[in-house]
Amino acid sequence: MLDDTVGLGGTRDRFLVPPGVVYLDGNSLGALPRGVPDRINDAIAREWGAGLIGSWIEADWAGLAQRVGAKLAPLLGTAPDDLHVGDGTSVSLYKALVAGCRLRPDRSVVVLDPSTFPTDAYVAEGVANTLGLRLRWADLGQPASSVDEDVAMVLINHVDFRTGAMLDIGSVTEAIHDAGAVVLWDVCHSVGTVPLTLAVDDVDFAVGCTYKYLNGGPGSPAFIYVAPRHQQKIAPPIPGWWGHARPFAMELAHAPAHGAARMASGTPPVLGLTVLDAALDVFADVDLPQLRTRSLSLTNYFIELVDRLVGDVVEVITPRLEHHRGSQVSLRHPAAYGVIQALIRRGVIGDFRAPDVARFGFAPLYVTHRDVLRAAGHLAAVVDSAEFAHPDHATRSHVT
Amino acid sequence: MLDDTVGLGGTRDRFLVPPGVVYLDGNSLGALPRGVPDRINDAIAREWGAGLIGSWIEADWAGLAQRVGAKLAPLLGTAPDDLHVGDGTSVSLYKALVAGCRLRPDRSVVVLDPSTFPTDAYVAEGVANTLGLRLRWADLGQPASSVDEDVAMVLINHVDFRTGAMLDIGSVTEAIHDAGAVVLWDVCHSVGTVPLTLAVDDVDFAVGCTYKYLNGGPGSPAFIYVAPRHQQKIAPPIPGWWGHARPFAMELAHAPAHGAARMASGTPPVLGLTVLDAALDVFADVDLPQLRTRSLSLTNYFIELVDRLVGDVVEVITPRLEHHRGSQVSLRHPAAYGVIQALIRRGVIGDFRAPDVARFGFAPLYVTHRDVLRAAGHLAAVVDSAEFAHPDHATRSHVT
Repeated sequence: MLDDTVGLGGTRDRFLVPPGVVYLDGNSLGALPRGVPDRINDAIAREWGAGLIGSWIEADWAGLAQRVGAKLAPLLGTAPDDLHVGDGTSVSLYKALVAGCRLRPDRSVVVLDPSTFPTDAYVAEGVANTLGLRLRWADLGQPASSVDEDVAMVLINHVDFRTGAMLDIGSVTEAIHDAGAVVLWDVCHSVGTVPLTLAVDDVDFAVGCTYKYLNGGPGSPAFIYVAPRHQQKIAPPIPGWWGHARPFAMELAHAPAHGAARMASGTPPVLGLTVLDAALDVFADVDLPQLRTRSLSLTNYFIELVDRLVGDVVEVITPRLEHHRGSQVSLRHPAAYGVIQALIRRGVIGDFRAPDVARFGFAPLYVTHRDVLRAAGHLAAVVDSAEFAHPDHATRSHVT
Repeated sequence: MLDDTVGLGGTRDRFLVPPGVVYLDGNSLGALPRGVPDRINDAIAREWGAGLIGSWIEADWAGLAQRVGAKLAPLLGTAPDDLHVGDGTSVSLYKALVAGCRLRPDRSVVVLDPSTFPTDAYVAEGVANTLGLRLRWADLGQPASSVDEDVAMVLINHVDFRTGAMLDIGSVTEAIHDAGAVVLWDVCHSVGTVPLTLAVDDVDFAVGCTYKYLNGGPGSPAFIYVAPRHQQKIAPPIPGWWGHARPFAMELAHAPAHGAARMASGTPPVLGLTVLDAALDVFADVDLPQLRTRSLSLTNYFIELVDRLVGDVVEVITPRLEHHRGSQVSLRHPAAYGVIQALIRRGVIGDFRAPDVARFGFAPLYVTHRDVLRAAGHLAAVVDSAEFAHPDHATRSHVT
């Protein structure tokens, strides 16, 4: 069986995927790891209910964000202490952008790729307005193309949320550094499927969400990576007592904590971090190159089947070159919305991006080659029968 | 029985307070509401595990923050749509301060009371640095005292976290408005015990946390109130896609949502909001004036017993005038740290604030007059026996 021999094999049992469902939307919301329900029950009944305030020490809620960071670090190729975990993704992007732009006070431009996930653009616009900077759009898919001596910072998505195209972090970072700018990588759509080596790649900042391929649950806390060389130089963008060197001294002046911990603001979201902490255990013994091998095997197989079955009417817009591809395959079809709705009715869950893109995420820990075969078969049936023209029972499925 | 006749009576059964524990730290972390465990189990197993991405619509995760806001509104005396719920308290303070200061672009000062909870000061310092403003300290307990034509905004704590002293929102707000400034009330230490009337009191902005007297669990999401008259004028301080008028249009320019919803940044923390949503159900039929009556009965009783039993060595630093008091009583004793540790060993949980303050919060929904009697008795035993001098088995209990 392909599922036993390619990459990881048996990790699907670590998840509670509903029977009969082919779930190809883990790029939007990851599936439920099996260990989560017991862990959150324990945190609520024993830690909160019985332990009450004492659990900040006895259950070490105070160290929870650091423990989560230590589980994330191998997936990112960073040291644990170079991560802050706890704010939402957009707020994390804001903090990283403010901190990074201030490292280049003599420069006035923030560069974005027009393919960016929109919230990145909104946050960058907000930071630019607040700090008196200007936004500049790079050439599509070429984020380093517009970086000159005016550019303070570049914000780039590692994997394009629409097409699944992936950039090379090392070479793009180098080109941006050559122009004297700082880079922030948004790794929301790659972390958990592609081995990241942020430290080796000399990345300045990175932000990622944890509810996609990291399976942290809806709206789970995001992380910020800060390169060690910057940590002591940056003023906390939103200073708060949990980023203070001595939080419980209750001093009126802020003294930033050592390292990336200064990026913290207030009390950490303990219950959300607890779910994430349990969710990350599924990665504990996972070999990341094997994970990538399996991811590519899944996406290659899907592309091959789509080409063969419906290649005349469906365009694969995800790069065919493996090193330009994340763990997602996107298809263009004029009735993509109807196609996705028809597939959902058949138990194959992908999602739609306007105007004509159907997205399918292949979370390599729980998606199988058999899932791929079933999905492609249903896709062919929907497209061939024009079933996509009957969106009466539509369920919108549209949150990244 | 006093507990049956004063104020609410039987609401304690709505909480899972550990047997034998007198819990007087609900001003730091509220007790576990009985309905929370089932609700979060359902959200995780059924909504996330089985419903997966479809739950944004089918479980209406997309409307969850608004539903929570609708439950908070009566406690605050606001309309539901004037609230944004979802960020941490410090980030919420940051957003409200940035938005408010920009309403007075010709003014350059932010005023704080030196009694403020420290994170408020850190956030204000961060906002001042970012926007090019200056901080000014008011006279202690007189936040309106230093407000002149240079002042853009005043940030005030409604109830002092150390002493439990409470200010009058209406008259202080009026004095600040008379000087042309905008006010942000931090209601972290009052909401859920004191009926608030933010709209009637003409408040501009308010921020509060939900893990104290609102029992939302450790690190639960905070709320921001924005007066209707300001909502369309303010630029979102951290613009993100969940505060966009059309989040799923995926436009590259930000168009703020209508009203307070524009204060949102990214994807809401669904699991934290779900716990909070369940927790707020304990307030559904609660008469707020009765809640206040019960709170005052509890704190009056405790003050009376402390005076009588240990008044010679323990100073009550909480105001004795009812309308100057929140729902907390703070005591000064030179060995306050040891006193708190000894009480915790006896099952009476309060907390310590340096250098010499012992704090006791009286959450009127689950603290009883019998609890008060037991707490005062143990306090007298600890103080009289100098048991506070043996902090060997100390459990720190120090998170607000």
